[in-house]
Amino acid sequence: MSDVQNRRILLASRPEGKPTLDNFRIEAAPCPSPGPGEVLTKTLWLSLDPYMRGRMNAAKSYAAPVGIGEVMEGGTVGEVVSSRSDLFRPGDIVLGHGGWQEYAVLGEKTLRKLDPAAAPVQTALGVLGMPGMTAYTGLHNIGQPKPGETLAVAAATGPVGATVGQIARIRGCRTVGIAGGPAKCRALIEEFGFDAAVDHKAPDFPEKLAAACPGGIDIYFENVGGAVWTAVFPLLNDFARVPVCGRIANYSDTAPPPGPDRTPQLFGAILTKRLRIQGFIVWDFASQAKDFQREMGAWIREGRIKYREDVVEGIGNAPEAFLGLLEGRNFGKLLVKVASPGMQAPD
Amino acid sequence: MSDVQNRRILLASRPEGKPTLDNFRIEAAPCPSPGPGEVLTKTLWLSLDPYMRGRMNAAKSYAAPVGIGEVMEGGTVGEVVSSRSDLFRPGDIVLGHGGWQEYAVLGEKTLRKLDPAAAPVQTALGVLGMPGMTAYTGLHNIGQPKPGETLAVAAATGPVGATVGQIARIRGCRTVGIAGGPAKCRALIEEFGFDAAVDHKAPDFPEKLAAACPGGIDIYFENVGGAVWTAVFPLLNDFARVPVCGRIANYSDTAPPPGPDRTPQLFGAILTKRLRIQGFIVWDFASQAKDFQREMGAWIREGRIKYREDVVEGIGNAPEAFLGLLEGRNFGKLLVKVASPGMQAPD
Repeated sequence: MSDVQNRRILLASRPEGKPTLDNFRIEAAPCPSPGPGEVLTKTLWLSLDPYMRGRMNAAKSYAAPVGIGEVMEGGTVGEVVSSRSDLFRPGDIVLGHGGWQEYAVLGEKTLRKLDPAAAPVQTALGVLGMPGMTAYTGLHNIGQPKPGETLAVAAATGPVGATVGQIARIRGCRTVGIAGGPAKCRALIEEFGFDAAVDHKAPDFPEKLAAACPGGIDIYFENVGGAVWTAVFPLLNDFARVPVCGRIANYSDTAPPPGPDRTPQLFGAILTKRLRIQGFIVWDFASQAKDFQREMGAWIREGRIKYREDVVEGIGNAPEAFLGLLEGRNFGKLLVKVASPGMQAPD
Repeated sequence: MSDVQNRRILLASRPEGKPTLDNFRIEAAPCPSPGPGEVLTKTLWLSLDPYMRGRMNAAKSYAAPVGIGEVMEGGTVGEVVSSRSDLFRPGDIVLGHGGWQEYAVLGEKTLRKLDPAAAPVQTALGVLGMPGMTAYTGLHNIGQPKPGETLAVAAATGPVGATVGQIARIRGCRTVGIAGGPAKCRALIEEFGFDAAVDHKAPDFPEKLAAACPGGIDIYFENVGGAVWTAVFPLLNDFARVPVCGRIANYSDTAPPPGPDRTPQLFGAILTKRLRIQGFIVWDFASQAKDFQREMGAWIREGRIKYREDVVEGIGNAPEAFLGLLEGRNFGKLLVKVASPGMQAPD
């Protein structure tokens, strides 16, 4: 196997503000070998997700940063090509954290076997995986949707936003999706069944959003921050819930924005409107994984939850695709198709 | 009864920034007469509370503002002096919303009869009343104290803060009280049983607070805002809860403070630390009043909850006492003793 090359994307330097291609480096390394209890996987699909921007910073967040010169982290669907585990054998398709590379050695305890007959395997990185479960757990545990309420969500054609909107609709909410540009807004209505769609790139976005929410907003699923938050804030109703899942618009801020300081205004509204603003990450609700798999699996089979994928080919294109994600250029769950299954394994 | 004068305090003008005595006016009016289903009460005790600052503004908060020329709102304990209600008779001591005046006509449905043998009647305005129930409901429903956690609260010798700290201690928390000046800090330890006390007037307050919270803060009961919040914020632990009950330090802000805008920083912490920040007012939990009365009554009888009163004599001194409250000059529950019970009723 030593003559098989493993192309991988390393973090070359930490970004100052917006990341650029220079922050990444591609290199070819010898393909690694599994130790006892490990398998060698060939990466079929790499997931690209906003949280990865946080891993590029030196500061500890809820997870440790990626080190300079280390392979970028990421969820993957891979095919087992050689195994020193009793649990997996060559040909198995597994969900794991292989990172931005063509091959990865992974411990058997970190893997989950996927059934290609049950659903397209890459959905384990999207609607049936971390993004879908983020939507499901944040919406139910913190958003607590009730029939007749209005839910708003941004990045609404993305895998989290689209799922949030569709689950909220199943729960009886009126759903307002926010996305960038007319094509995405059309998809919100026609593909994902939102009740209203608002283009955040429109010059009169705040007015359009207010018009789309005549009864105010009861749940704002926060995954973008920035100007969308500013427009949402005055529309929040008494007792509104704000699950805070991400703030992609602020991830590359190098300094706090100029004043005045709006914190007292925010607390004033929290108090008088009795808002609940609560952060979470999906693993806080790990115990709900089985409920999520069961319920979401059924909704997808019944056609009640739709999903959309944006596929980029080849590991070498991962950095550029990721930069596009931070700019909102993807349209659906962003995936890198790294290889096809069933090809000759390295020997 | 027409020759009995009712001295009352009116809102003369709306404050711009900090209120002054000029915002109030005292006048003597004829004593009113009760209609059917109403009683005339003589005010014995008037409660002064931070929320009244909000009522002086024109903006609607969770309650309508007091109008210019109207009697200032306030909770009162009064003695029924004449009754056109079947539920109350002269001599009864009642809790109601009589406002800042010596006599008030109140509807029978707005009153609760008090038993002077059960507890000093003015405690119905403090530890056994709205402030105590604010502490009890906000702490339990949002703060959700668990044994071994650290709770911090400011205005900690006040009726809400002192009660929050003592209940949290009963629930097994380590409690850190924040108050202004050495005398109050001493009372926190010696009178109210806090584990630590920190003087927010000390020049090195943030460092002192950090030293008093070596394991960070799991619950911050927010009732002051301002510089205390700034010192507390970096000490919040993962999964900390922040019941937002008041922001007295910010009530008289006329404009947002200068920049930078700290909102993104706050949301960043909400996300990575999974904070829960939630506003409430006591009446949101009105259904828990019986639990509160039962449990708090027992704690007071058992000596497990202490309370302290700061009494001012005479309705005419209410405005100055209220201004002092906004500056933290009171030491304990601020009450105006307006009259004594059992004196000749106006005929």
